[in-house]
Amino acid sequence: MNARVLLLFAPVLAFSADITGQWNFHLVRFGEEFGAARVELKSDGTKVSGSLNELTMEGTLDGDRVHITALRSGKEWGKLEGQVNGDQMAGTVKQGNDEFGWKAIRVKESTAPPQTHVFEPTQFHRAFSGAIAPALHIHPGDTIKTTTVDAGGTDSKGVRRSMGGNPETGPFYVEGAMPGDTLAIEFHRIRLNRDSAGSGDRIVPSAVQPGYFRNAKFDDKFNSEWKLDREKNVAMLAKPTERMKNFRVAMQPMLGCVGVAPPQNQSFRSGWLGPWGGNMDYNGLREGTTVYLPVFQEGALLFVGDGHALEGDGELNGDALETSMDVEFTVKLIHGQGTQGPRFENSEYLMASGIAGGLQEALQQATTELARWLERDYKLTPNESNVILGTSIRYEIAEVVDPQVHIVAKVSKAVLEGLK
Amino acid sequence: MNARVLLLFAPVLAFSADITGQWNFHLVRFGEEFGAARVELKSDGTKVSGSLNELTMEGTLDGDRVHITALRSGKEWGKLEGQVNGDQMAGTVKQGNDEFGWKAIRVKESTAPPQTHVFEPTQFHRAFSGAIAPALHIHPGDTIKTTTVDAGGTDSKGVRRSMGGNPETGPFYVEGAMPGDTLAIEFHRIRLNRDSAGSGDRIVPSAVQPGYFRNAKFDDKFNSEWKLDREKNVAMLAKPTERMKNFRVAMQPMLGCVGVAPPQNQSFRSGWLGPWGGNMDYNGLREGTTVYLPVFQEGALLFVGDGHALEGDGELNGDALETSMDVEFTVKLIHGQGTQGPRFENSEYLMASGIAGGLQEALQQATTELARWLERDYKLTPNESNVILGTSIRYEIAEVVDPQVHIVAKVSKAVLEGLK
Amino acid sequence: MNARVLLLFAPVLAFSADITGQWNFHLVRFGEEFGAARVELKSDGTKVSGSLNELTMEGTLDGDRVHITALRSGKEWGKLEGQVNGDQMAGTVKQGNDEFGWKAIRVKESTAPPQTHVFEPTQFHRAFSGAIAPALHIHPGDTIKTTTVDAGGTDSKGVRRSMGGNPETGPFYVEGAMPGDTLAIEFHRIRLNRDSAGSGDRIVPSAVQPGYFRNAKFDDKFNSEWKLDREKNVAMLAKPTERMKNFRVAMQPMLGCVGVAPPQNQSFRSGWLGPWGGNMDYNGLREGTTVYLPVFQEGALLFVGDGHALEGDGELNGDALETSMDVEFTVKLIHGQGTQGPRFENSEYLMASGIAGGLQEALQQATTELARWLERDYKLTPNESNVILGTSIRYEIAEVVDPQVHIVAKVSKAVLEGLK
Amino acid sequence: MNARVLLLFAPVLAFSADITGQWNFHLVRFGEEFGAARVELKSDGTKVSGSLNELTMEGTLDGDRVHITALRSGKEWGKLEGQVNGDQMAGTVKQGNDEFGWKAIRVKESTAPPQTHVFEPTQFHRAFSGAIAPALHIHPGDTIKTTTVDAGGTDSKGVRRSMGGNPETGPFYVEGAMPGDTLAIEFHRIRLNRDSAGSGDRIVPSAVQPGYFRNAKFDDKFNSEWKLDREKNVAMLAKPTERMKNFRVAMQPMLGCVGVAPPQNQSFRSGWLGPWGGNMDYNGLREGTTVYLPVFQEGALLFVGDGHALEGDGELNGDALETSMDVEFTVKLIHGQGTQGPRFENSEYLMASGIAGGLQEALQQATTELARWLERDYKLTPNESNVILGTSIRYEIAEVVDPQVHIVAKVSKAVLEGLK
Repeated sequence: MNARVLLLFAPVLAFSADITGQWNFHLVRFGEEFGAARVELKSDGTKVSGSLNELTMEGTLDGDRVHITALRSGKEWGKLEGQVNGDQMAGTVKQGNDEFGWKAIRVKESTAPPQTHVFEPTQFHRAFSGAIAPALHIHPGDTIKTTTVDAGGTDSKGVRRSMGGNPETGPFYVEGAMPGDTLAIEFHRIRLNRDSAGSGDRIVPSAVQPGYFRNAKFDDKFNSEWKLDREKNVAMLAKPTERMKNFRVAMQPMLGCVGVAPPQNQSFRSGWLGPWGGNMDYNGLREGTTVYLPVFQEGALLFVGDGHALEGDGELNGDALETSMDVEFTVKLIHGQGTQGPRFENSEYLMASGIAGGLQEALQQATTELARWLERDYKLTPNESNVILGTSIRYEIAEVVDPQVHIVAKVSKAVLEGLK
Repeated sequence: MNARVLLLFAPVLAFSADITGQWNFHLVRFGEEFGAARVELKSDGTKVSGSLNELTMEGTLDGDRVHITALRSGKEWGKLEGQVNGDQMAGTVKQGNDEFGWKAIRVKESTAPPQTHVFEPTQFHRAFSGAIAPALHIHPGDTIKTTTVDAGGTDSKGVRRSMGGNPETGPFYVEGAMPGDTLAIEFHRIRLNRDSAGSGDRIVPSAVQPGYFRNAKFDDKFNSEWKLDREKNVAMLAKPTERMKNFRVAMQPMLGCVGVAPPQNQSFRSGWLGPWGGNMDYNGLREGTTVYLPVFQEGALLFVGDGHALEGDGELNGDALETSMDVEFTVKLIHGQGTQGPRFENSEYLMASGIAGGLQEALQQATTELARWLERDYKLTPNESNVILGTSIRYEIAEVVDPQVHIVAKVSKAVLEGLK
Repeated sequence: MNARVLLLFAPVLAFSADITGQWNFHLVRFGEEFGAARVELKSDGTKVSGSLNELTMEGTLDGDRVHITALRSGKEWGKLEGQVNGDQMAGTVKQGNDEFGWKAIRVKESTAPPQTHVFEPTQFHRAFSGAIAPALHIHPGDTIKTTTVDAGGTDSKGVRRSMGGNPETGPFYVEGAMPGDTLAIEFHRIRLNRDSAGSGDRIVPSAVQPGYFRNAKFDDKFNSEWKLDREKNVAMLAKPTERMKNFRVAMQPMLGCVGVAPPQNQSFRSGWLGPWGGNMDYNGLREGTTVYLPVFQEGALLFVGDGHALEGDGELNGDALETSMDVEFTVKLIHGQGTQGPRFENSEYLMASGIAGGLQEALQQATTELARWLERDYKLTPNESNVILGTSIRYEIAEVVDPQVHIVAKVSKAVLEGLK
Repeated sequence: MNARVLLLFAPVLAFSADITGQWNFHLVRFGEEFGAARVELKSDGTKVSGSLNELTMEGTLDGDRVHITALRSGKEWGKLEGQVNGDQMAGTVKQGNDEFGWKAIRVKESTAPPQTHVFEPTQFHRAFSGAIAPALHIHPGDTIKTTTVDAGGTDSKGVRRSMGGNPETGPFYVEGAMPGDTLAIEFHRIRLNRDSAGSGDRIVPSAVQPGYFRNAKFDDKFNSEWKLDREKNVAMLAKPTERMKNFRVAMQPMLGCVGVAPPQNQSFRSGWLGPWGGNMDYNGLREGTTVYLPVFQEGALLFVGDGHALEGDGELNGDALETSMDVEFTVKLIHGQGTQGPRFENSEYLMASGIAGGLQEALQQATTELARWLERDYKLTPNESNVILGTSIRYEIAEVVDPQVHIVAKVSKAVLEGLK
């Protein structure tokens, strides 16, 4: 940060500024601003204290000049100096021989009561990306009622509204959401809004033994369009073969995609999934489920889409019973409590995701996240969490057909009852 | 087969022998007998027909000389010639330029009504091996009531009866069981017979992320002995930490091991699993379950052991709540209907195993076996089985801690109701 | 495409236009232009023929109105109608009941002789993304002489020029490059330009057994800075421990990153790799190697970076001997010959990449690409390619530490000599 | 051990026995003898000291009564009491509340000079098993000249000698070899002894992408018999297609199988591999290579077989150029130095095997074994071994077609030169 910039923040007050409150903090290097973070500061006379994620901050305020030492686990991480100018601050960080800029803007939190937004999407997005302009700004606690088109872009009236490939509704900008926070999205409604669905009719080759696929005689003219009987809550083939004409299967409507903007300004097509959620294709993401996602960008940018009337584990046919959906959800914001990736909760289970390039790595991730969740929330030691999971963990193979595979590890809340 | 042996079968009858019935057939090469198989023959005057697994056999009977051509898919597989001598036959096979011996012994099937055997084990075996002498001979349809010691060798009275490592009860020789057959073992009872169990207290490193295990501070003195309250059907730590003193978890007694002698005279320690079953560690193998296993050796040689009061998916701690068990099961024999590996059935589900070196391969195997099961038993095309599994397959990760991992693919019988 | 737009292309000529040549073709749907492709057309009087990737096109030209039927494998893919306006065309496609827009712009190919560009980078990019403005436009056949900073952003003079994480030099826009084409980048020079490198000093946990990492006593103060003796071409620790003070290892300078803009407008951090190349970390990408990459976006957008003085297979420490580099390469363009992912060639070997979430999948991909390469270029049947690879394939595990793993399958050109 | 047995060892000497020397030691539990181990004892008057693998032993000798305390890492492992009777000892071990028997037999080491045995095999074995009677007893240092038949059982003269499936020559009993020791087998000759080989002609489905195998049009009549020109050292198809008629490939004769009896009395078919070696199918196991294998059973029982004239990495076609072989090797015994699995050494490289259910696990194992090898033999810290491997490790994918996959990690001896 050069001298010219600092002039913009020239002192205007004879007494020390009050910098108590929340600030949105960035570092500035090589002309790039990065690393948005929530800083909580408290100034008491000339004494300043606070935190920035896992860093603790201590320092002094001398008029509008601020001097702060940031510590990680008790060791000095860096020294910040800067100038306060009303709701803005800026200055330099010294870290050993290295020096770079910082700036901060005061966060104004809403005091308005939660609102319900009825949102009619007019545009759909086929990427999870922070570069897409928000379709709606909401505050934590607000509820959104909206609709999603099917994976091919068709809406509840059968009108094609977008190119295919999981077009998403949103994104929704959540005021005050910052990297390091967690979004809690409570799904009150995930409901079918039409009587038809489409699906593939053959299991992807990677989910069967090579010999099966080579020998199986598939009929290219097999019709796998589905009729959805919303009254009886069953699906059946629309034009069944003789053998399938009495086949009925109970539906369990779900959303394949719930995601936020990925970390580091990356942009992934809406077939992808990762720590930011995305195309998770988990058949447990149904009405009554809360989805927890880490925030990687200011405002989080929430996307929803890819409704399934029903999906077997693994989403074996590359898709499920793809259909449009009416959805309603409340978005809450949990400050400074990081989850490493998607988690889920419903009335029965705590569930943690493992999303990785292969099943073994996904299983390791899901197990670890669930163990850590128990250890943190129930104040357990590793031995304790491990004997609980040893008796009670359940795995679900959410999907094996997308660019990353997805395993969910879960534990029944009934088992945890005695630990309260 | 040399001349001296053939002399033993010198003709004694002036008219053609009656060779109608079942024969136990072996090839003889390089001094080794191998490939036991059930041959079904029908002689009608001088005409002979029959089958040997997938081979069809056609030929003539001239006094006590038999001439048979064996065909695979309509093409000649080989020509057999031989001599009948009462309940034995022997001769040579010609296959192109190759020539080797064969012999067959008439199978005598039991006509006795099914029996119930109360079996008190006096010796336990720590291998799945066809070289172990049978502890008991039974007939198909018979029921066995017996007990198993825990994985460490301790019985219901707390007496150490064997070295540890899944000591097995059995093996039970099933009269008439032949390679190519399937054993159906119906478990009527899998019941706890004592009030204690032991378990590990830390998840195996391969099931968590490297970072977790490296940082977790485990207490080497943590006591993970369990108290089993059979009346309330709950388990609790015998000497709990403060945090765990109200922890109770419902038990689901199961058998970790059900296996037969492995193929090709191999011998595996009782920690192994494979197409022959073995240490499958599947928490769905509970009372009310039928286990289907392929037969690889005459008599099948059935082993049972490794009772668990409760096991989370994956058997993450390397073991479960290890305890002794009272078991009761009926063994049935299905002729000539091959399963490629273990299958299970209970009142709710059809379940097929995938047992392999890694999770992806295990998932492929389980999916394929389940698809083939549906296609065969419900006469479905691949498109039909695939849309059913696409909507309705459920996976369970049975275990990830043994020399091979085990995934179970299952489908609800309710879903299949409309296909009958 | 609405009427107003079509008016722009109103007829101005009484005789048929000459549309012979190459056109850059896009579809237009839901307001989005996508799918750039090279169309080759030939008009002969009123008759028009041509191709668009694997589609063949046949039709008529009536003044400035064009009517084309596009066929895939002999079956109708769609019908195009449109208006010619000099070097532009536009119109509608009918595909069954579906209808959408198309447009095309005539491609002007350069006739200038190849040039050599000396490029001094002033800005570095930490993403592979088509959204980054080109740093330089070049023509196929041109040569670029430039430099790369090390993975942490430091240049040959030890000056920090960028944030860390594989900052890239470029991107270079290749005139005329189109999706479906292949870029051939011939590296004439990959040379060290300073005397120091940095590296990690411990193998990533996922590349060793859990027990190793748990028990290994690492020294946090171990110094793994390297001194590079360019004269003798050996590296040594700059401040070695006693045991390592005579340790010398021959250097093999290479580039970790060579990539183009990813497909579908995605943006990946420069630690990623995929079909577009990227952070491939293959120690065979040395001076004398030609890298083949598929083009996913007009102009391709070529990035280079992440020089390594030396790297063991797998890049086990998460990095290699990271240093800045002088590079010189010629970029050629191969029309309409698709490779599915990165390939390499040097004087000894043909090499094909497998880049995937796990090693098995990466091996399958690498094997398949190499088999297809042989089959196409040497006109071999699968049996022929398979017996050649069965005797002669060699695998290299390029890296196992990035978001995707990378295996290279290769075959010696000497083995292929007899097939010419 | 009951009283009656102890009577057999009644005291016969008034002064203390001399028990100095090597003993072969077994535990006796539940009627089973197990855990053969080499005990080294030294008696000095009434004082006794010694070792048993990692246990240290201290005690007293009172006439023919011995009292020993065994310690593991300084902690008491158990107390042994027993009776000496010439070259035998027996008694009981107390371990906490547990008590069981032990026995020991004095080892007589050979003082004869090394011999060369010319061994003509008459029988071949299709299993790695300690239950097979030794074909020949040798002493450490002895050399064996023998032959192997090809994987199908055919010898150098084209005579079928065994059923197929890697029939093995041996087993060879190595006098004095004990569990915990390492066998070093130095191959002086691995030479072709006939002019023909057979191979498969299609890559196994698991090594290619599902799409490749599904679409590839294989010719079932393709002839993949090979002609081996031993003079020019090249292989060619015996009846080549037109395209392959000039195809020549240099041969690199190797052995697919070198193994010892597996641990715990297991018996595996000769297609298997594991810590005991076996069907490793590593194309680096050529003339000039020393193979190191852990010993799991008294005498080790060494098997060799499965010669390949040439094999590509991975043994992709399920087999290589399968042929019979003349072999000559010297067997050395390294006392009490455990390797966890197969290792190899030649003039250029140190090589460590990873043999596991999947490639990732195999890579972890190979990397770890190689790191440990360097740390032990060169007295390196983990940081030191890790920076060496980070720069210099090379991986080879030995095979991907057997019941376990095999990866070899290696490091050049030239790199290690400066560490001596």
